[in-house]
Amino acid sequence: MRPSFWILSTGTELAQGRSRDTNSAEIARKLADLGFDVIGISILPDDPEIILAYLQWLQSRNDVTALIMTGGLGPTSDDHTIDVLGRWTGSALIEDPTALRRLEAFARLRRRIDIETARRQVRVLADADVIPNNTGLAPGVLGSVARETQPLWYCALPGVPSEMRPMCDMAIDRLREKIHATPVHRVEFHVYEEPESDFQKTVFNDGGLAPDALKNDPAFRWGVAAMPGSLKAFFEHETDERVITELQQAVQSHYGERFLHRSVEELLPEWLLEKGITVSFAESCTGGLLAKTITDRAGSSAYFAGSAVTYSNQSKQDLLSVPEGILTTFGAVSEECALAMADGALKAFHADAAVSVTGIAGPDGGTPEKPVGTVYSAIVTANERIAFKLFYPMDRERVREYTTRSILFRLYRFLQKRTGS
Amino acid sequence: MRPSFWILSTGTELAQGRSRDTNSAEIARKLADLGFDVIGISILPDDPEIILAYLQWLQSRNDVTALIMTGGLGPTSDDHTIDVLGRWTGSALIEDPTALRRLEAFARLRRRIDIETARRQVRVLADADVIPNNTGLAPGVLGSVARETQPLWYCALPGVPSEMRPMCDMAIDRLREKIHATPVHRVEFHVYEEPESDFQKTVFNDGGLAPDALKNDPAFRWGVAAMPGSLKAFFEHETDERVITELQQAVQSHYGERFLHRSVEELLPEWLLEKGITVSFAESCTGGLLAKTITDRAGSSAYFAGSAVTYSNQSKQDLLSVPEGILTTFGAVSEECALAMADGALKAFHADAAVSVTGIAGPDGGTPEKPVGTVYSAIVTANERIAFKLFYPMDRERVREYTTRSILFRLYRFLQKRTGS
Repeated sequence: MRPSFWILSTGTELAQGRSRDTNSAEIARKLADLGFDVIGISILPDDPEIILAYLQWLQSRNDVTALIMTGGLGPTSDDHTIDVLGRWTGSALIEDPTALRRLEAFARLRRRIDIETARRQVRVLADADVIPNNTGLAPGVLGSVARETQPLWYCALPGVPSEMRPMCDMAIDRLREKIHATPVHRVEFHVYEEPESDFQKTVFNDGGLAPDALKNDPAFRWGVAAMPGSLKAFFEHETDERVITELQQAVQSHYGERFLHRSVEELLPEWLLEKGITVSFAESCTGGLLAKTITDRAGSSAYFAGSAVTYSNQSKQDLLSVPEGILTTFGAVSEECALAMADGALKAFHADAAVSVTGIAGPDGGTPEKPVGTVYSAIVTANERIAFKLFYPMDRERVREYTTRSILFRLYRFLQKRTGS
Repeated sequence: MRPSFWILSTGTELAQGRSRDTNSAEIARKLADLGFDVIGISILPDDPEIILAYLQWLQSRNDVTALIMTGGLGPTSDDHTIDVLGRWTGSALIEDPTALRRLEAFARLRRRIDIETARRQVRVLADADVIPNNTGLAPGVLGSVARETQPLWYCALPGVPSEMRPMCDMAIDRLREKIHATPVHRVEFHVYEEPESDFQKTVFNDGGLAPDALKNDPAFRWGVAAMPGSLKAFFEHETDERVITELQQAVQSHYGERFLHRSVEELLPEWLLEKGITVSFAESCTGGLLAKTITDRAGSSAYFAGSAVTYSNQSKQDLLSVPEGILTTFGAVSEECALAMADGALKAFHADAAVSVTGIAGPDGGTPEKPVGTVYSAIVTANERIAFKLFYPMDRERVREYTTRSILFRLYRFLQKRTGS
């Protein structure tokens, strides 16, 4: 039987919809990517009785293999997770010495922390493993409770996403050992600038890339997730690795350069670093999102010189030397302006390549000729200049996200061709 | 007793984290704003047995007044909601004549619709009210099941947000009548640059701002959520509005200018627009995040001129005229460099105010004197220049987020003082 997970987030703000629970979906995604079933996700308010009753109910269900909880591990009196787990499992509460030392060191740096209040959060369960928190202060726990059939495994992690993320990876690794989960064969890849529904038709419709025998094979599974400007897909087979790698090869041949084994956010920085190429940006409608995305990774100063976020026309002239004539004749949202902006960024930042983006993110500013979602972009180097148009008729946030990912993808492929690698 | 709601979304893609469930948070928010308790939110895969078992369990809980479900009302074979509700409530399934007429009219317009498959979605329960769908095709239902004490109310709505939204408003209106609900009193506010645990101590410890009588009042509730660089808190009272507004006033007096009624992301743009003030940025370690954050809102071109994301030292000199001497004498991460960067951005973008940020986001680049998390920022106008240091010893993502929100907050308060408003 495939192991089944339940995910539980606690927090009154989450249960009231005042903050968004991003953790559950992220954890569910990780588990699904590993081939596990997620049979439920729940959000409960910071009420110890409600949480305890829910844990007892989960324990009574034999179809749940493991539970991953987030939230409620902080220092305040509405943080109840450790106390509730203590009541549920019958375990004593103790302080984790490593976490306490970290807290003391942190308090020395920031004098305003009151250590007696704050040390609530270094409590763990005597009968459970500790998941160390190397980012924040509250450690996590991982243990099991007895049940009629096999035990119910549980782990509790902090709700702060940057702390939760690495701890969740650790917890899942340990849980996989405990529950003897056998991995299935799996391939995963990205296709850029392709809608999910078209991908599905291309691969799985009659006459599509997937053989009929595979489509009807119960040991085969696939999934596709839409991302801004791309899709991420996986094929899984419980026993046969060959059939899924063959199908992946067929997909790769079909999509050509739009197919990538990993996301462009991972591939582009590695490749720039390896080739010693530097890039710069000139941004209008993305408003800094392109620069923010490339600097999300540590070490980006090795290949990223900078970005001129020129929101006003005046700043396009002043910082990027866009000729006034281009702005009056063609407008700021034009191929001509995109090329001039990229030329300006190449010069201003002394980079090997420069990319510009100018468009209408909306919701206002669209015209019949240039509706919301119209974006022009250019890529220039010392020897070459190309410009292209993108069109994503969507809401503001999505125009900006789709544009950013499309442009990074196109920059990657453009530079690869130019350097012949 | 306050009515308590449970929210349930169904969908395998949601349970696997491959699509994001935005409906639950939206409904929870609506209910919380009306003063109802949301005591749980769950996401279950499209598995009729899992959903039925869950409904039976909810029915066994006397603390749930009403359940709002979304999803699973479509025409495909993985849509199970109506069938499961029929099995749960014992009601017969019938076709809703209004919805059927809408479907037939729709099918005449779009020939590709197979009406025999599609009419699955116009089925409703004979024993429940119909919630009409004026946007899409599948109607919702609203009914109740008997329980030991009072009945459990339920309603089921489509998962498509644009259909769900107006139908949910209708459903909540009807439910409020059925359950005779009264709203609670509530205040909500933000405190900047204050850790959650210190806030709790200040307000709720012995001798804190909250009167002892209120702390022990079962009709009083409070909550606090940590956000990057700030916290968001609420006070609620079931009957007495005065006690919570008094406590809020005490909190406001205590925190002074660090107290805001709404988040700075909302307040700053409105205020800049009203005063006709423009701003520009010079960013190093935030790498465009400051610009990205201020341009998240439509219409930001009215008050945002642009940002120079100068990641390299050379670009700080070229775009912002930072003197080379400052970089060699004090380094790029210094108060002096922050001031010079802000001066440069003020000039380059012809803005009324400019803000700079330069620091060490990590994980590398820290030194004993300037560890990871050290950030210098400056705010300059034609007449004034201030610089300050921030210190967030955290991971890269959080250094950038905390810095961005702190700086926007400080910019807002600085400009308010300057204009005397």
